[in-house]
Amino acid sequence: MARLSTRTCDLHASPVREMLEVAMRPEVISFAGGLPAAETFAGLEAAAPPPRELMQYGPTEGEPALRRQIAEELQALGIDAVPERVLVLSGSQQGIDLAAKLVVDAGAAVAVEQPAYLAALQVFRFFGARFDILDRAAPGAGWGEAAPRLAYVTPTFQNPTGVCWSAQERAGLAAACDAHDVILFEDDPYRDLAYEPCERRPAVAGLERASWIYQGSFSKTVSPGLRLGFLAASEDLFTYLVRLKQAADLHTNRLSQWMVLQYLTAPDRAKRMRQVTAFYREKRDSFDAALQRHLGGLADWEAPPGGLFFWVTLRGGVDAQALLKRSLERNVLFTPGGHFLADGGACSSMRLNFSLAAPEAAERGLAILGELLREKRAA
Amino acid sequence: MARLSTRTCDLHASPVREMLEVAMRPEVISFAGGLPAAETFAGLEAAAPPPRELMQYGPTEGEPALRRQIAEELQALGIDAVPERVLVLSGSQQGIDLAAKLVVDAGAAVAVEQPAYLAALQVFRFFGARFDILDRAAPGAGWGEAAPRLAYVTPTFQNPTGVCWSAQERAGLAAACDAHDVILFEDDPYRDLAYEPCERRPAVAGLERASWIYQGSFSKTVSPGLRLGFLAASEDLFTYLVRLKQAADLHTNRLSQWMVLQYLTAPDRAKRMRQVTAFYREKRDSFDAALQRHLGGLADWEAPPGGLFFWVTLRGGVDAQALLKRSLERNVLFTPGGHFLADGGACSSMRLNFSLAAPEAAERGLAILGELLREKRAA
Repeated sequence: MARLSTRTCDLHASPVREMLEVAMRPEVISFAGGLPAAETFAGLEAAAPPPRELMQYGPTEGEPALRRQIAEELQALGIDAVPERVLVLSGSQQGIDLAAKLVVDAGAAVAVEQPAYLAALQVFRFFGARFDILDRAAPGAGWGEAAPRLAYVTPTFQNPTGVCWSAQERAGLAAACDAHDVILFEDDPYRDLAYEPCERRPAVAGLERASWIYQGSFSKTVSPGLRLGFLAASEDLFTYLVRLKQAADLHTNRLSQWMVLQYLTAPDRAKRMRQVTAFYREKRDSFDAALQRHLGGLADWEAPPGGLFFWVTLRGGVDAQALLKRSLERNVLFTPGGHFLADGGACSSMRLNFSLAAPEAAERGLAILGELLREKRAA
Repeated sequence: MARLSTRTCDLHASPVREMLEVAMRPEVISFAGGLPAAETFAGLEAAAPPPRELMQYGPTEGEPALRRQIAEELQALGIDAVPERVLVLSGSQQGIDLAAKLVVDAGAAVAVEQPAYLAALQVFRFFGARFDILDRAAPGAGWGEAAPRLAYVTPTFQNPTGVCWSAQERAGLAAACDAHDVILFEDDPYRDLAYEPCERRPAVAGLERASWIYQGSFSKTVSPGLRLGFLAASEDLFTYLVRLKQAADLHTNRLSQWMVLQYLTAPDRAKRMRQVTAFYREKRDSFDAALQRHLGGLADWEAPPGGLFFWVTLRGGVDAQALLKRSLERNVLFTPGGHFLADGGACSSMRLNFSLAAPEAAERGLAILGELLREKRAA
């Protein structure tokens, strides 16, 4: 038998990816994934043909023009980013892999929100991290003696909760990282999907001395299929991250970089983003109304101010995993909240994606969830 | 100061990537990289516009049609590959990262050729591998008590030597892996760049029971800028590799996958590849002739039967790294052989890429190397 690395013992399938196959069946209504609505994708077909020189190997860091554009936008957000410290990624999932390689030894502590993005938990766990739960109301509490090496957070329209941190919470986290020498790793893929006025200033912009990584994605604003994201980082980390990127895949495909640059510099970009957010705001509102109709009195939630998810907590401590088992038989899919907990375990919350399902399908799917919950209550 | 993982201590810049910046200067003649000639790139501009559905997230394993096509071609080579065990990669460098994550713990032994592909050595080293040197004339010698977990080989037009293993050597390696339960990881990016009749049957096709990974690349036949490669693997490893791929970047960008599928199924593909190999064969021959003119009597080499490199050994034990120092002052770049040695150290060989430089530039560059060597001999 092949001898594998010890870390492979901790290599589990992503419950979300596993469900994707079921989700693809036409009869299934899925609230499980995090897929943006196809209606929102930028019109890449109309773009001019890419220059032939992009067919050659390119720089590990990414295309210079794209890096300049990204740096400019990050500076406007208050981030200390120069083009020389921008690294183009093959999607922002890659940034998590690179950060984990850079920071996490077996047994190293990583602070995460509870709940947190499940694919980040998986990567950190794979490299042997143990988790500290971060309280956004009091970040840094308990960091006196044994501060974590890294704090991984998604302060703006978090996945799965949709929560957006206040200015005070962001400042508190930055101060705690500064005080305890904790690397702040801010993941910000949803920032452009804002449906309400919210504090969105990146937490890393408030740092004074701690090391940091900030990353973003074009999956929600241009197209996930292109696999394009980016990170910026403090000087002490950046050189290492470039080497890790080079070892991981040499560089990001240049065609995607070229296409995204076209999008970022298109004259109608702002108009398109207004249309996209208006489209999602309406979807969110009609989803919220459908939730009221079918789960009112059975569950609690808040309409998210941005992003792609509702975080719905079932009343009476109903286990979301058990509900999923029954809803699957009725062809309705969602992601049970337990997958987003650093310590696993039962959870009465569920993550519902509202961006993909058509309104009629969403209505039908939520009606089924409501029925199942009422049956359970009656039983 | 930020606390980083212990493996980061072993995170050095790639000497080749570092040189790339110098290589980009117009006055520099570079034999250092492994860049294919731009003349050989497939004409992607002519392709039909990609279907809009590719803008959405896709399957981790890759596009079904592309996986089927790849599996069919691997089966024709004698590899036990089915579409369900083909994983599309963001370039074949990624396959090395995934394999290292899967197999290598700190201190685990990995068998490699001497010399071997330097970016593979870097990745294995990063995960803490120690290296066993593989003798292709007697693979498995010394594996009695403590066989390595993995043997990483490039039997067909190896980078850096250009060597192509004989049928007997391939069979010997497969038998040794079978006998000692060693995972055979065969990297095969150059197989289509064949200029002479050679044994090219993949070594993994000769396995009877050992676990295996076989990977290939489209960087040398279509375009490196698209970052597209693939692997096939034995059943026991494949599921893990998919999970690792998912954690690394979710999936490979779908536009590149679509473009490469167009190329693979184009009616003129075979004709184009004949043109590409004819083009490179001529380049190799004229490079060989220029080497004769300028380094004859100063160095030894064999014209490679395929691939992109000459492996040239300087007579009199001249250190290639020392030669590079002087040739850099004359704007001539190459890769010193020491970088390809698992144990580092001085080396009187150098790798010369013959695919990129135009004939006149190659002539000039080799003349300079000859001059420097003659100066050295005279001194």
